[in-house]
Amino acid sequence: MFKTIEYNDGIVRMIDQTRLPCETIYIECKTGPEVAEAIRKMVVRGAPAIGVAAAMGVSIAAQAIDTEDPLFFFKELEKQCDILASSRPTAVNLFWAIERMKRTGESVANGSVKKIKERLKEEAHRIYQEDIETNKTMGRHGQELIRDGATVMTHCNAGALATAGYGTALGVIRAAVEAGKKIRVYANETRPFLQGARLTAWELKEDNIPVKLITDNMAGYFMRKREIDLIIVGADRIAANGDVANKIGTYSLAVLAKEHGIPFYVAAPISTLDLNLESGEQIPIEERSREEVTHIGGKRFAPEDIEVAHPAFDMTPNALIHAIITEKGVIRSPFIENLKKAKLS
Amino acid sequence: MFKTIEYNDGIVRMIDQTRLPCETIYIECKTGPEVAEAIRKMVVRGAPAIGVAAAMGVSIAAQAIDTEDPLFFFKELEKQCDILASSRPTAVNLFWAIERMKRTGESVANGSVKKIKERLKEEAHRIYQEDIETNKTMGRHGQELIRDGATVMTHCNAGALATAGYGTALGVIRAAVEAGKKIRVYANETRPFLQGARLTAWELKEDNIPVKLITDNMAGYFMRKREIDLIIVGADRIAANGDVANKIGTYSLAVLAKEHGIPFYVAAPISTLDLNLESGEQIPIEERSREEVTHIGGKRFAPEDIEVAHPAFDMTPNALIHAIITEKGVIRSPFIENLKKAKLS
Repeated sequence: MFKTIEYNDGIVRMIDQTRLPCETIYIECKTGPEVAEAIRKMVVRGAPAIGVAAAMGVSIAAQAIDTEDPLFFFKELEKQCDILASSRPTAVNLFWAIERMKRTGESVANGSVKKIKERLKEEAHRIYQEDIETNKTMGRHGQELIRDGATVMTHCNAGALATAGYGTALGVIRAAVEAGKKIRVYANETRPFLQGARLTAWELKEDNIPVKLITDNMAGYFMRKREIDLIIVGADRIAANGDVANKIGTYSLAVLAKEHGIPFYVAAPISTLDLNLESGEQIPIEERSREEVTHIGGKRFAPEDIEVAHPAFDMTPNALIHAIITEKGVIRSPFIENLKKAKLS
Repeated sequence: MFKTIEYNDGIVRMIDQTRLPCETIYIECKTGPEVAEAIRKMVVRGAPAIGVAAAMGVSIAAQAIDTEDPLFFFKELEKQCDILASSRPTAVNLFWAIERMKRTGESVANGSVKKIKERLKEEAHRIYQEDIETNKTMGRHGQELIRDGATVMTHCNAGALATAGYGTALGVIRAAVEAGKKIRVYANETRPFLQGARLTAWELKEDNIPVKLITDNMAGYFMRKREIDLIIVGADRIAANGDVANKIGTYSLAVLAKEHGIPFYVAAPISTLDLNLESGEQIPIEERSREEVTHIGGKRFAPEDIEVAHPAFDMTPNALIHAIITEKGVIRSPFIENLKKAKLS
């Protein structure tokens, strides 16, 4: 089994997701900015995995700060955290993980720098472990929504590759398979970055879960043919009212699901929930490079200098979401009340 | 201005649409099977252009039949027609054009073979000319539906490249521009074959019509942002009840248009209408090669041996279509009555 990310001997080792599925290559980051660059370049991607990577990045950055003065240490750490925080704008887990690392450091601020560094390393490992456990718990809750023999459609990659391991949306599918159910998956390729084709198809195939790859614009066709029983996607950020920011194309899928009476589920850890945001309208949508739309594999297939739009995410309003699957259970409408309750429980 | 297809001196010359937009190369077909191969390989594509190419293919095949015996001539011609008819399964214009050529030949069957050959060549040229005139008339009718300043979304390529010239959906846009209206276009890239990115974006740019390229799964996002005023697509086949077969993804767009209250129009010549089909459920959907889903520009980005589905077309039920724009006028519900009236008028 592949490892999405690992942190040993002061090195963060990640599978290079920009090279999959053609090559299985691991890269090593030895500094905070190297981790930030890996996040920016999408060597590691997926909201929970970004959070885990950022926590590890904070820890390796901390280890390298050569001082015994806690005040100077925290000033330097703040700079490193800023570099990591600026790597991607949409995933709340990034900010959540960095904040948690900062608070952890501050909680032992009256100890020695050595002690603070140890505590930070420990916390990065804890965030990693918690993420896997969270996904397994989420999977156990979510798999009850899937009947034996069901066909599940998913978008982008909310799998082991998007997390420390096991996955959110794909974790729910894995849990259903582990519960003995026969599950088939339709993976949308997810243009422009093709995470579905490159990552989800690869990851499920590695796990021997039957998967069929389709282009995004075929989703409606197969829903209309009644080949899809339910849809499960991940989330990059969830607002207090249950609006969900996720990979571009998620919103269109949710509309199609509604038209066809197909349940539409979001699987995400509670850390993805941002109670500071009243609604999804306030979620910033990352605009990525035009080359991701005009080129694939370095090859251009659109006219030169063509005008391009590239919102990398979209927002799915809560009314289109049947339930949000979390490690605290399956949360349904009214989302404002129930999400708050889960977050604070 | 580029020429999609031309027929001169016994040669059918086509712009190679598989090479656009990076290279502007013309290929020459000197036999019927060469034309059939060009259609199969999508050197020429788009339902009306396929019809025109097939008619020209029948003519060059006819010229090459070395006999003065009409009976033998028609037997040979039939074989050539069969080869052409088997090149693509969904576009009704293909069969329509071949049938029309056969009937034309039969109408002068009591003349000499030389006379029949001349008549067939003349008819191929007539089909070409009629297609351009049809598109211009369609454009005049359709452009009245577009207000000055509107933003139009389109899918695939229903342009000059999909016809003998001018285009169906893009012909309506061209007519609006020629009427002095300021029009902006959102072109969906149209996976897997990327006709939107490769052809529509290129063709509109050549004509200086403002165009923005997006991936298919961004369509819902921009509809929700109220950036799209109307949608116009072409058609590969229209059933008697107004159900429309068109490029995969059209159905999803129509559902999204309904959700957002955006008018959804189909622009197609009456020759696309197949009164023999009661409903769209009877339209055969072409399944194309898996490599079109797993590869772009010869480069694979999905796991090897992954299971793939590749329906090249889908069917949009008449209830999702505001109107069908034809050379006989803008046809609205009840489609069964109004389409029949237009076809027989």
